[in-house]
Amino acid sequence: MNGNTHTQRISDVNQLFLKKTLDIICGKWRLFIIFQLSEQDRRYGELRRMIPDVSEKVLIQELKALVELGVLQKKSYNEVPPRVEYGLTEKTRTILPVLNQIMVIGHTFLAP
Amino acid sequence: MNGNTHTQRISDVNQLFLKKTLDIICGKWRLFIIFQLSEQDRRYGELRRMIPDVSEKVLIQELKALVELGVLQKKSYNEVPPRVEYGLTEKTRTILPVLNQIMVIGHTFLAP
Repeated sequence: MNGNTHTQRISDVNQLFLKKTLDIICGKWRLFIIFQLSEQDRRYGELRRMIPDVSEKVLIQELKALVELGVLQKKSYNEVPPRVEYGLTEKTRTILPVLNQIMVIGHTFLAP
Repeated sequence: MNGNTHTQRISDVNQLFLKKTLDIICGKWRLFIIFQLSEQDRRYGELRRMIPDVSEKVLIQELKALVELGVLQKKSYNEVPPRVEYGLTEKTRTILPVLNQIMVIGHTFLAP
């Protein structure tokens, strides 16, 4: 009996989309960081205060990863003293409604 | 200067929702498994064939975790030979539309 007659495998393309999705939202602090930047750009020090439970090392590492993924952009302003802020990219803005919806999952499973 | 005048921390309740959400969808194979069960219940052997890249040990471990989280239910049928199938719980069915939307994230970031 051929298993394929009864089962359907996820397509390679969908696997790719899913992998990328998980890269972006998984990781303990990624969604936290994105939500904190949804209203306005923030400096590193502000983010530190907004997410006090994260260690300095991990926050720096997560910000770097999110910039590399194209989720965040780092903007440097030529001021004295120099100012650097993190903000959401245009792509991230387009998926914000989906990211907000994601919270529904936890809400559903924590309901009695 | 008080940092709180400029920054707003995620509420403890939202942190809880987010943590639960990540428990459910993160983990390399969790969403894969949920999607594979969205149309019908499946036996362990069928799931193995549908997700051939996952090792036996990891699949068993992920199925167990998803049952404990209330995402999947294990149904035993009193037949000869005994039949055991995995299926989505009612709560998981209610969040399926959100889970389907999640793929949009990967799609957006893989687009040029």
